Amino acid sequence: MFFHIKELQYHAKPEKPDPLFAKKLQEILGGQFGEISVALQYLFQGWSVRGNGKYKDLLMDTGAEELAHIEMLATMIARLLDGAPVGDLEKAAKDPVLGAILGGMNPQHAIVSGLGAMPADSVGNRWTADYIIASGNLLADFRANLNAESQGRLQAVRLYEETTDRGVKDMLSWLIARDTMHQNQWLAAIKELEAKENVVVPSTFPRHLEKREVSHVLFNFSRGNESATGRWAKGPSMDGEGVFQYVEHPQPLAKKPVLKPAPAYIHDTPPSVIQHPRDDILPPNLY
Amino acid sequence: MFFHIKELQYHAKPEKPDPLFAKKLQEILGGQFGEISVALQYLFQGWSVRGNGKYKDLLMDTGAEELAHIEMLATMIARLLDGAPVGDLEKAAKDPVLGAILGGMNPQHAIVSGLGAMPADSVGNRWTADYIIASGNLLADFRANLNAESQGRLQAVRLYEETTDRGVKDMLSWLIARDTMHQNQWLAAIKELEAKENVVVPSTFPRHLEKREVSHVLFNFSRGNESATGRWAKGPSMDGEGVFQYVEHPQPLAKKPVLKPAPAYIHDTPPSVIQHPRDDILPPNLY
Amino acid sequence: MFFHIKELQYHAKPEKPDPLFAKKLQEILGGQFGEISVALQYLFQGWSVRGNGKYKDLLMDTGAEELAHIEMLATMIARLLDGAPVGDLEKAAKDPVLGAILGGMNPQHAIVSGLGAMPADSVGNRWTADYIIASGNLLADFRANLNAESQGRLQAVRLYEETTDRGVKDMLSWLIARDTMHQNQWLAAIKELEAKENVVVPSTFPRHLEKREVSHVLFNFSRGNESATGRWAKGPSMDGEGVFQYVEHPQPLAKKPVLKPAPAYIHDTPPSVIQHPRDDILPPNLY
Amino acid sequence: MFFHIKELQYHAKPEKPDPLFAKKLQEILGGQFGEISVALQYLFQGWSVRGNGKYKDLLMDTGAEELAHIEMLATMIARLLDGAPVGDLEKAAKDPVLGAILGGMNPQHAIVSGLGAMPADSVGNRWTADYIIASGNLLADFRANLNAESQGRLQAVRLYEETTDRGVKDMLSWLIARDTMHQNQWLAAIKELEAKENVVVPSTFPRHLEKREVSHVLFNFSRGNESATGRWAKGPSMDGEGVFQYVEHPQPLAKKPVLKPAPAYIHDTPPSVIQHPRDDILPPNLY
Amino acid sequence: MFFHIKELQYHAKPEKPDPLFAKKLQEILGGQFGEISVALQYLFQGWSVRGNGKYKDLLMDTGAEELAHIEMLATMIARLLDGAPVGDLEKAAKDPVLGAILGGMNPQHAIVSGLGAMPADSVGNRWTADYIIASGNLLADFRANLNAESQGRLQAVRLYEETTDRGVKDMLSWLIARDTMHQNQWLAAIKELEAKENVVVPSTFPRHLEKREVSHVLFNFSRGNESATGRWAKGPSMDGEGVFQYVEHPQPLAKKPVLKPAPAYIHDTPPSVIQHPRDDILPPNLY
Amino acid sequence: MFFHIKELQYHAKPEKPDPLFAKKLQEILGGQFGEISVALQYLFQGWSVRGNGKYKDLLMDTGAEELAHIEMLATMIARLLDGAPVGDLEKAAKDPVLGAILGGMNPQHAIVSGLGAMPADSVGNRWTADYIIASGNLLADFRANLNAESQGRLQAVRLYEETTDRGVKDMLSWLIARDTMHQNQWLAAIKELEAKENVVVPSTFPRHLEKREVSHVLFNFSRGNESATGRWAKGPSMDGEGVFQYVEHPQPLAKKPVLKPAPAYIHDTPPSVIQHPRDDILPPNLY
Repeated sequence: MFFHIKELQYHAKPEKPDPLFAKKLQEILGGQFGEISVALQYLFQGWSVRGNGKYKDLLMDTGAEELAHIEMLATMIARLLDGAPVGDLEKAAKDPVLGAILGGMNPQHAIVSGLGAMPADSVGNRWTADYIIASGNLLADFRANLNAESQGRLQAVRLYEETTDRGVKDMLSWLIARDTMHQNQWLAAIKELEAKENVVVPSTFPRHLEKREVSHVLFNFSRGNESATGRWAKGPSMDGEGVFQYVEHPQPLAKKPVLKPAPAYIHDTPPSVIQHPRDDILPPNLY
Repeated sequence: MFFHIKELQYHAKPEKPDPLFAKKLQEILGGQFGEISVALQYLFQGWSVRGNGKYKDLLMDTGAEELAHIEMLATMIARLLDGAPVGDLEKAAKDPVLGAILGGMNPQHAIVSGLGAMPADSVGNRWTADYIIASGNLLADFRANLNAESQGRLQAVRLYEETTDRGVKDMLSWLIARDTMHQNQWLAAIKELEAKENVVVPSTFPRHLEKREVSHVLFNFSRGNESATGRWAKGPSMDGEGVFQYVEHPQPLAKKPVLKPAPAYIHDTPPSVIQHPRDDILPPNLY
Repeated sequence: MFFHIKELQYHAKPEKPDPLFAKKLQEILGGQFGEISVALQYLFQGWSVRGNGKYKDLLMDTGAEELAHIEMLATMIARLLDGAPVGDLEKAAKDPVLGAILGGMNPQHAIVSGLGAMPADSVGNRWTADYIIASGNLLADFRANLNAESQGRLQAVRLYEETTDRGVKDMLSWLIARDTMHQNQWLAAIKELEAKENVVVPSTFPRHLEKREVSHVLFNFSRGNESATGRWAKGPSMDGEGVFQYVEHPQPLAKKPVLKPAPAYIHDTPPSVIQHPRDDILPPNLY
Repeated sequence: MFFHIKELQYHAKPEKPDPLFAKKLQEILGGQFGEISVALQYLFQGWSVRGNGKYKDLLMDTGAEELAHIEMLATMIARLLDGAPVGDLEKAAKDPVLGAILGGMNPQHAIVSGLGAMPADSVGNRWTADYIIASGNLLADFRANLNAESQGRLQAVRLYEETTDRGVKDMLSWLIARDTMHQNQWLAAIKELEAKENVVVPSTFPRHLEKREVSHVLFNFSRGNESATGRWAKGPSMDGEGVFQYVEHPQPLAKKPVLKPAPAYIHDTPPSVIQHPRDDILPPNLY
Repeated sequence: MFFHIKELQYHAKPEKPDPLFAKKLQEILGGQFGEISVALQYLFQGWSVRGNGKYKDLLMDTGAEELAHIEMLATMIARLLDGAPVGDLEKAAKDPVLGAILGGMNPQHAIVSGLGAMPADSVGNRWTADYIIASGNLLADFRANLNAESQGRLQAVRLYEETTDRGVKDMLSWLIARDTMHQNQWLAAIKELEAKENVVVPSTFPRHLEKREVSHVLFNFSRGNESATGRWAKGPSMDGEGVFQYVEHPQPLAKKPVLKPAPAYIHDTPPSVIQHPRDDILPPNLY
Repeated sequence: MFFHIKELQYHAKPEKPDPLFAKKLQEILGGQFGEISVALQYLFQGWSVRGNGKYKDLLMDTGAEELAHIEMLATMIARLLDGAPVGDLEKAAKDPVLGAILGGMNPQHAIVSGLGAMPADSVGNRWTADYIIASGNLLADFRANLNAESQGRLQAVRLYEETTDRGVKDMLSWLIARDTMHQNQWLAAIKELEAKENVVVPSTFPRHLEKREVSHVLFNFSRGNESATGRWAKGPSMDGEGVFQYVEHPQPLAKKPVLKPAPAYIHDTPPSVIQHPRDDILPPNLY
């Protein structure tokens, strides 16, 4: 159950309106790695934890905090849109700044949301749950979380570089610091789970059931062997289960597949029109 | 530039058709963490690498391999659909297996693709580039890759458990092993980049510009303090830049925001109808 | 800012697992009118209120409650999925109930979410912000809210009829009652705003600027005049601004449009190939 | 069955081209509340009416009219795009108006549609049936329709304010007037159905089956009690079935949920790694 | 402008309800090549024709007819859903047909649409304007139309094979015949335009501006030269502008690209971490 | 299986950066008819061919080439974004070119992709598999391919007209030439299949099972009979199976449908509220 208080976790007040930056700032509110994504990702992961304890609590702590970040960004965007101009282009364009705003601001901020923030990214794509991840396997999911906080901090930093407004920079410096913590916390949790399980997810699948002969092999499918010089091509593997190998000229292990004709009621191209050689015979001219 | 050979990287032949499993197998072909996702994710990351060398080569090697995995899965699904029944329910339902197939198979496998694989997941959602990630920052992106291979292997393992077909299991054991390698390789690359940069992405943003006082603080926003018992709540932080702290009762740092009225031409609810108190004055009854 | 407590607002425990019903129940969690939709709709509306006072508070109260409903449904769905069977169809299908489950359950509940709830509807479409509405005009938005609670209660009632599980019915009877309240509350708020403004949204647009001659006219575009017998075709209009009229044979008021050829650099079909008569001349054979 | 005549319902001719406004105008053609949405929403509702009579006829009348509005907007947009410039930015930018157009117009109007209207909104999101609603319950659906016409008129009014072109304003004044009528007609139909049934949808669910003790209660989940001052917090409820109550400190009614471990074949994080306390026992340290 | 009459273009009455087939039939109502797609595709093409005459009229004729087909399918689906069972699985599963229906029908037909048709395909994906095409170039668009009618007829034929209901088959035999006509008419129109212009779209781009040396060349990028035996690999090209050639071993024509480092404010991986060789120099070890 | 070489098929180097054109160029990389679409469309068609031989080989040849085109465009876009400005609008807007860039470039190129290409179109919609087609019927699919190459070449030509950069034009002239070939090759393949089968897809459905009386009839549903003057309205049909006919006043062939009431458990509007006349009786006042 959730309680809300109306005070903000941190300040969200620009020095002055900037409708163009409002559009850009939507990215970290409603984009792939915006605050809606992390809030719902952590909450759904938390609700799915089978058991309880510190991991579930950590997810719910952080999920609830991200709701506060949505709120801060929604507030900041509404203020950046204060009194946004929507008027006649021809008149406006005499002032180059105004012209750039009229050409560049998100028209939906005026037409659809009435100068409010939208659950959308910086080009207007509406937020979708395609962005979020909750698998029931915490090591997998904490890696998703570490990625989300890495991408999110990167985007916040880029936005910090794109404005000179001290109010906006102040709020971003808060969000960037929180992303620092969140990267740290998921790193700590990952380290602990990797120690308890193994670095390969899921750790519970018996290794003898996989084709172990290719579990630590790098296949060179892009000509040039720079990749052979990396740590991943030699030495003991990260999971302690083998040794990295490099295969310069990977070969196919299965013959050219030939699919059987479809039944007549499917009305694919009839077999008489397509050549149907005997399955799995390699034509002699291929090798 | 790409060259194709028609032989498969590995076998993709079931013991016998199973249209219901064909539907499920779509998940790791066209789902969020299916082979289309990793193929295009690695290729787009590779094409965006500014510079060259081993990281770019590794991305292109792996991206090209994932194309071969799409091909294997597409072949397997077509074979699982061989001669799929599409007939009359009432007659079919007398055979419970046939009834379950008719009720449960993906109808688009018969109506739309003509017994071919589709670029869609196990419930029929078409693949979307919302699933993929390429930021230009390799540490961030390799974390996305590690997550993708973790989720992907987890899903392949779950599918392995859902079938008794030895041909399908054989192919999955190959894909699971490759996911083992791919987790290992991204782990190796991540370790190297973390050592060169820092564990916090992006490493190039000056730390003094963020609100360092909250860079290593866990706020307890979900009642109960199990999360205080984790590594992330005490001791030195993972980035070596501070000490984890735990705040049991987090407080808001900004006043309740009050937004200014919109201009008349926006036609929001008029100010006379909504109460517009002076900005940022906390009403006395709130505390 | 938000705080979470781990206790649930109301019970969410089924008598026994039912993976098929888990799939159906997703509709009111992650569907068009599920709890994610109302939670985010109310919160975004609240964050956009320009001014403060009772309307904003009501939105935040209700938005925060809907977060608790997402939580209840996520919990219920995870429990309905307890120990869900994923095994071999041929064996399973000997038990017709098991066969129906294997054919009918959402395969992603096993493959993707690991027996957890998903941010998706009952056919697996992921939640999208296309579903939500926040315009800055409260009368418009409260109508959206009234609709959402009407559709939502209707769906909850239909689901209530589709199960015999007393635990599920108990939880639904709570959600249905809350939807009763929410319909009541939006009705009360709408009534108040309609009295302060006018029933037509937005009330602030000067009426003389619209084509008043068609502001209260019903055009009969579907042959048969049953619609002429309704209240909307005669008597004073609901907005007190006119009298309803019925036009049995509506006529076009503008000539047939003829668009000018595109510039050559657009490479549309060349004008020499398409007939380009003089603009706005009605060919004589048309009337 | 449908017949088309080529004359327009009303004029759709701008004074002069304006590619930037063409982009904005797309909102009420192909946006969430654009004419495609209302046309298909009313038609699908009409086709689903089980029975006939005035409601079905009204839906078909209005649905057919909205098709004519799509046509008017498509025509207007094509004309606003007449001869749209697509040339070199550097040269163009010497003329600020041209620069703003080149930076701000929808590039797909030139590249994809060849200066024609698109089934998309003002930021280029393609229209999706996620926007529309047809439930089989007319009172619910007429509320959806009233909302659609409220949002639609609001957007048309905002666009009216954003142009000085007399031709565009003339067309919008027609569409605004029609939205006035459509709000009026759905209000009339809603009033009639509410009188026949009850204000709570669906009216056919027996009230004793819902948790009546919370059917008229406002829970204060957002600190501050401004919402207690509203009509929805005291006095008889709108449905005549109870009295509104206000609960200042809402309490959870169910214990903290603890989910059972997943079966081994799901490969969630193993129970040994997550704490699995006995279900529904509140740990003593929490309160 | 559009007029509607309530009579159907053709019969749409099944012998008896079949909720499973109702789900499948959604494909040709709301799928990629369903009737919504062709209706809106033809209408948008028609509205964008710059000029008038027979092509525009043909588009409007056919677009209006497809609206009648949506109506027929919506009616048929509602009737196939008559009295659809939604009850308890355990009881139902004793009747295998009922079990298959409960497991296999679209749950949204009961929960969301109230036994009405939906603007969605056979797996529940909502219709999207991503499916439709209108470019302003009629030869291009008529090819899109010919494809749509080919795919549409193929799907209708497959559905015809999947039912034994004489009422459904009767309606499908009508739609299949209409698709026959529509393929014929677009073929006729294409033939005419190809004769007036050229077979290559757009015909108005000066041929000397393209790299004519590769305008009629087949590159063999998939090992094996079966494709060399086709008409497309030898003889005069279809556009009368050249002779087909076959290149067995295609070579790259540009060096390996090396991208410049990003500016510091982008915070990509720093150049010091990625190798930045001089642009366009082929490392000697590659060949 | 696929191999990659790092050299490009053709040059992809602009004279100088142009972030605005980078945004536009995304259309033919990640738009509806961009290179991702054709690459995956041809590959999926190829993998689904049941049988082998020249058609499958042609599909794989062309699919692999399109992968190289994605690569060229990704490279070109990254270079057009070299050093893209992201700074302060107010300062920038003093330079009109810079102002237009800041207002008009895709903000995600800076915030999300770090100056890399994205799998998205020119307005930022992410690529979706909704765009692609693979039915198992080659004649149908080759028509889809011919359309894709027609739309793709049209878009490339329009982009060619929108730039003066010689490097960009050079690359586009290559892609345009390849589209010329691809239109030619699908035309050749279509001609061959039409000769072997029939022009109507699918050719395998017995003609006597369709309503042959309407297989060659043009219904005039849009007033005005310009369409009667086309080849499709008279003379032998293109499939050699009949003679085109024109019906000036098409009549409905089925009565007005009346749907039965829904079961009570669906909670649609109750029958007592909607008029339920006897099915299929035309009310006398309608004609």
